[in-house]
Order: sequence, then structure tokens, then C-alpha cells
Amino acid sequence: MTSAQTGPRLARRAAGFTPSAVRDVWELSLQPGMISLAGGNPDLSLMDLDWMAEAAAEAIATRAGSTLQYGSGPGEAALREAIPEVMAAEGILAAPESIQVTSGSQMGLDLIVKLLCDPGDTVVAEGPTYVGALGVFGGAGVQVRHVAMDHDGMVPEDLERLLEELAAASRLPRFVYTVPNFHNPTGITLATARRRAVVEVCRRFGVPIVEDNPYGLLSFTEATRPSLHGLDPDNVLYLGSFSKILSPGLRVGWVCAPPWLRRELQLAAESTTISASGLSQALATAFVRQTPWRESVAAVAARYAERADALCRALEDSLPEGASFSRPAFSRPEGGFFSWVTLPEHWRANELLEAALERNVVFIQGASFFTDGQGAHQLRLAFCSVPPDGLREGVRRLAGAMEQYAAELAADPA
Amino acid sequence: MTSAQTGPRLARRAAGFTPSAVRDVWELSLQPGMISLAGGNPDLSLMDLDWMAEAAAEAIATRAGSTLQYGSGPGEAALREAIPEVMAAEGILAAPESIQVTSGSQMGLDLIVKLLCDPGDTVVAEGPTYVGALGVFGGAGVQVRHVAMDHDGMVPEDLERLLEELAAASRLPRFVYTVPNFHNPTGITLATARRRAVVEVCRRFGVPIVEDNPYGLLSFTEATRPSLHGLDPDNVLYLGSFSKILSPGLRVGWVCAPPWLRRELQLAAESTTISASGLSQALATAFVRQTPWRESVAAVAARYAERADALCRALEDSLPEGASFSRPAFSRPEGGFFSWVTLPEHWRANELLEAALERNVVFIQGASFFTDGQGAHQLRLAFCSVPPDGLREGVRRLAGAMEQYAAELAADPA
Repeated sequence: MTSAQTGPRLARRAAGFTPSAVRDVWELSLQPGMISLAGGNPDLSLMDLDWMAEAAAEAIATRAGSTLQYGSGPGEAALREAIPEVMAAEGILAAPESIQVTSGSQMGLDLIVKLLCDPGDTVVAEGPTYVGALGVFGGAGVQVRHVAMDHDGMVPEDLERLLEELAAASRLPRFVYTVPNFHNPTGITLATARRRAVVEVCRRFGVPIVEDNPYGLLSFTEATRPSLHGLDPDNVLYLGSFSKILSPGLRVGWVCAPPWLRRELQLAAESTTISASGLSQALATAFVRQTPWRESVAAVAARYAERADALCRALEDSLPEGASFSRPAFSRPEGGFFSWVTLPEHWRANELLEAALERNVVFIQGASFFTDGQGAHQLRLAFCSVPPDGLREGVRRLAGAMEQYAAELAADPA
Repeated sequence: MTSAQTGPRLARRAAGFTPSAVRDVWELSLQPGMISLAGGNPDLSLMDLDWMAEAAAEAIATRAGSTLQYGSGPGEAALREAIPEVMAAEGILAAPESIQVTSGSQMGLDLIVKLLCDPGDTVVAEGPTYVGALGVFGGAGVQVRHVAMDHDGMVPEDLERLLEELAAASRLPRFVYTVPNFHNPTGITLATARRRAVVEVCRRFGVPIVEDNPYGLLSFTEATRPSLHGLDPDNVLYLGSFSKILSPGLRVGWVCAPPWLRRELQLAAESTTISASGLSQALATAFVRQTPWRESVAAVAARYAERADALCRALEDSLPEGASFSRPAFSRPEGGFFSWVTLPEHWRANELLEAALERNVVFIQGASFFTDGQGAHQLRLAFCSVPPDGLREGVRRLAGAMEQYAAELAADPA
């Protein structure tokens, strides 16, 4: 008997809240001896915790009114003024009045879905896409259609074809959700020409875009690409976050919204959590105002770049030989936290995971990032929270699991 | 042209997010010289801020893994173990595994509505009720029906009559929402016999109860009354909060839920904010574990009791004489933050508010706490954030506004 059967009937949409594969392996990934290539956790040991401890104490001692009291619905004024500076570091222009502070950018997506989607509506997202977005969509009774990706990101022609199909069925999506920079889960970055194409297609169909950019500042190269928001500010809702550059535990993110959604966002935010933690907002503000944060973030990104490089080199050296592996078998991220591995088509990542867990290494299976059954032979590897030596050992264990699994398949091909 | 007209069509339910009257007077209440009887803000000057500053610094310096990293979906284990001690101080038994930590109890209600209500569903609440609950219901497309209150709280016979009416129309509510202790906005407490009656009626109709108890520990008397949750743990979802006993800016609350909703609550919470702020959770845990919190809360409650007494005495001495005021014209709270004033029937609180603002005193008009047009001649006075002298002066100004308004009405009765 499931728990739902012993209580009252739940809402129809309640069944849409499905477990996140990332959260499911949470406990496993904390086991002693386990090398976790699963969670997208920033490495806190790269952060200045002494500064943060002092800043927290100072905010409480000197600014209790804004730090500990009920706060402003759209966010503390000082933070709403600081956030455009963070966006400016990626070349994005934003005004303080466009900023709605949220308890993490996850909540920003929750608010957008509340305001744009009725149950039964459709949204479009890359396939694969961020698993936490799938949770929001599912819990709101919203259907997801995937757009294909290749090594340059979302394929605009596929997006156009999908929008035409949906328009013909009078089911145009309420928005297109995308992670253009160092995509979760693939690590892939949307090419510049495609950004213009995606923005143009969406504008033509009258479909807003939700641009989720938690990783943009963690770039491993000098390359800069225009934000979708910058290309069409009135049609692109932008989600930003302090989780990857300061701390995820503080739960501070934001929506940068065009005028037509600002007041509604504030009302929905107040109705959901009243405000984000004032103490967390004070720390995010202090981070921008009182620290050389651009330099710190660049230094942290350089460490993640070393890890990405260690992971990719190890994969290159270790993946089993043979025509059954596509080339490239894995993505080479230019920033962020993730690489995406494509196994031979007939392999199953969930079966490989069992062999991997026996060897004390854990990853997320690719199917978790799709709603339509794709990804069974793919997997996500996170390199963010493991130093290079650990990554090399993790890949060694993973390669061992692959060899074992390949041998099992060969012995029993049924 | 309103903003919504210039962008894409919003979700049908988006129009249900309406401005909170409490938030609307937020800016006004911060004006220099203004005496605010409006907001239910705890008085932070009664809190030990030195301790809190130290505790925050210590949590960051010594427990960064739980304080600053992505956290556990149901809440940090240490906090889930501490919360039952807080509930035990009101005589409520709860197990750690029944606790879902949220970013304030507002979010707890958001999660419950997500899980129990589809758009078009009905819920039942006291009339008047917490304005923030009306925001959640409206934003989810949920209809509210009010149950009458008297000086002993919700009237069980009226609840039974309403449930019969709704059952006959096949529109049984998804739950009954109630604030049984020191009710917001009226300050009224549900009598013990009525608690048993309300629980019995709801159980008989198969309708769950949502018991919202942010003020329960701020009691001005020795009286204890059973929690609804304690009377029927499997049918009552309980909302608790650290906002009134520690700090609202931290945004830490909880749901204590029966087994049939726990897993669903966790999934919905992860999908909404991933977790509450780890730093805020660390402070709430330290408050329970490292401080004489029962004594501090009792001392703070004693200060609020002085304020309630000062307000009620001032009202008694100052309200204009005459048969046009009902007796009693205001509630005498036994705890919490609020008193509720009933003006003569033909008075309008929104008109009185104009006269009050001219005299630099602000309150919340009663109609804000109803969805059906009741309360136009009623108003909420918050005594929590103003010391006794300020309350006396505030009531003096309010009485002046009443005299002016009464004179205007007499001069122009149309």
C-alpha cells in the first residue's frame, strides 16, 4: 500500500512531483570511500569561509532590521542594486527594478510556472534538461516537449519544427526553457549564431524564453556569447543564482524579468515564501560590495577548469576502445560542472550504475534528464566537487565498471 | 494599460495573486513619525542579537558542509530533531520524521496547496483569516468559503452547516484552514470544546485540517489547550514557524505531517526551493540546542502581554462613546500580536484609514482578511512592534481620527 492510499485524495498534479535522480543518490554519494561524480555541488573549500563568517556576524549585529525582520517582497534594495553588477560581468544589462530576488533560482522557475502555466499546458526544453526543472513542470501538471541538442546546443531547426507542430495543434508552449551556458546535464554551450536563431524563432511564434544561467560566470575560456536576455529583453526571463559563485546553502537567486511580469512575480514570490532569507541576502550583497568577487570567481573557475581537464583526459585514456563508442563519446565543457557521456547504444546506464556502485563511484543516469525515455545509454559526470586525483581514480573505477558490464553483455547478450 | 496586457497571456490562475493589504501599507508604516499598528512584525529589540551574530559565525566556520552546501530535502537532521522539542513546549507530540522544514510556514502552506488542491477546488477558512493564506489560495485558483467566528473562535455549528452544504453540491473542501491560537487577524483563541468539535466534524466529512500555529508560544496566560494536530494526528497538518520566536528574516518554518503526505511534501519542497537556507536552519537549531529558549520566549511573551494590555486599556478609554459601538468593540487577545476592532456597522475602515494616516497612525482594514466582502467596518491592530507608550499615543491618534470621521459622517450622512 502506498502512502497516498491511506490519506485523502491528493491533487491531480501532485503525482507530477517525481523524485530527482540527483536527490536519490544523495545519501549514496555521502558514503565513506565513495567518489561522487553525481551531484552538482560547488566545492566550498574553494570559498573564503572566514570572510563569510565575519560578514554574517556583522550583518546581524549592525543591520538586524533588514537581515532578521520581514523583508521587502522583491528583495532587499541593496541586493537588487548589486545583482545587475553580477550580470554585467557577463555583459548583460539589467536594471534593479527588473530584479526579483528568490530563495534560489529553483524558486524563480516555480514562480514563472505559477504565472505562465495552467495544468495541461506545454513547455519546451532541451533534451536532456535540468532535472529540477522537470520537477517543477511535473508538479504543475505541465507537459514537456524536448528539442534536440548537438555539440553546439539546442538545434534551432528542431525548435522551429516543434513549434510549428505545436502551433498546428493549437498547443503552443507557454515558454521555452534553456540553459545556454555550460548546460546541465551536458556541459554544452549554445553557439552564438544559434542564440540569435533561437531568440528569433521564439519571438516569431510569440513564445517567451526562460534563460537559466547558474554557471555562466564559471567559464574556462575567454569566449563571450550574448545572453538570450540581452538579445530580446522583453521576451526572455532570466534566472540567476549565487549558488555556484558564493554558496548554494544560502538559497539566493533571482529572476530578471521584463516589465509585463514584474508585479505578478512579486505577488507570487510573497505568496510563496514572503521573502528570501534576509541574512542570506545580506551575505550576497556583501559578497558583491565588499569583496574582490570577480577575481575570486575567476580563481574558482580556474580550479574547475583543471578538474574538467583531468576528467576529460582520464575519460580519453580510459574509455574502452572499440567502434561501439561514438566519437566523441563525451562532451568537453568550456565551463560549469558537467560532462555528458554517451555509451554504446545497447548499453543501459542504470545497469552500469550497479557495477559502478560496487566500485565506489556514482554518477547520474541520463534518462533522468528526459521525460520521453531518451538517454538510457547516457550519463552525467560532475567534476565540480572532486579534486583532479579523485577524478582520475573515479574514472579508473568507472572504466573498470564499463569493462565488467561489457563482459557481462558479451556473455549474455540477451 | 496594465503590464499584463503588453506581454504574453498569463496563466488563468495568475490573476489570483492579489496584493496583500499588509504589504501595501509596508512603505507607509516605515515613514518617520508614523505609529504602525499594521504589520505583524516581532520586535527584534527583544531578541539576543549578540548571541545570534556569534552563532551565525560559528555555524559557517565549523559546519560549512551543512550550512552552506546544498542541503537535505526534508531539512537538516539536527533541526528536524530540535523542532519536536519546540512543539513539546506546547504539549504537542511529534516525531522528527514527521517534520518537513520549509522557507517559512508560508511556504508550508504553498506546498500543501500544491499537493491537495487543483484549480477550481474549494477550501474553508475562518472569516476573517490570514491574508497571506488568501494569497496562496488565490494564486492556486482555489475558492475560499468562510466559517463564522465569535469570541471563542470558529463556530463548529457553522462549519458543519457549511460542510453539509458543500457536500450536497459535491464540492467538499480539500481542507479546513485555521489559526486556532491568538488568531490572525482577530487575536481570538479557539475554545477547547470547540477544538474537539471541529476535529470531529472534519473527520466525519473526511476533510483534513491545516492548523497554522505561529503564535502559540506567545501566550499571555497559563491556559493550555490541546492542538488540533494532537487531537487527530492523521487528519491534521500542522504549520509551525521560528518567525515569531526567533526571527522572521531567517525564513524557517515547518510542516508536521501525517505519513500519507510526507514523501509528497519532500518532493514538492525540493521542487520549490530545493531546501531552506542552511545557515538559517543552523541558527534555528542552535537557538533550540544552545540557548535557554523557553525562558527567552516566555520573557518576550511577557513584553507582548504588556503591549496588549496597554493597547486594550487605551482602546477602552478612548473609543468614542455611544450605542453605535458594539460591546465589546475589540478583542482582548490572550497571546500573539493582534486585536480586532469592530466599528459601527455603517462606518468604513478604508475611509477611517485616510483620517488615520493624516494623523500618522496606520492599521489594516478588516475587509482585507475576507474574500466575500465582509469586514468593511472592522480593522486589525497589531501591538507587537510598538512599546506601550507608542501604543497609547497610537490609540489617541486613532480615536482622534474616529471622532473626525464620525463628525464627517454626521455632517454628510449620505
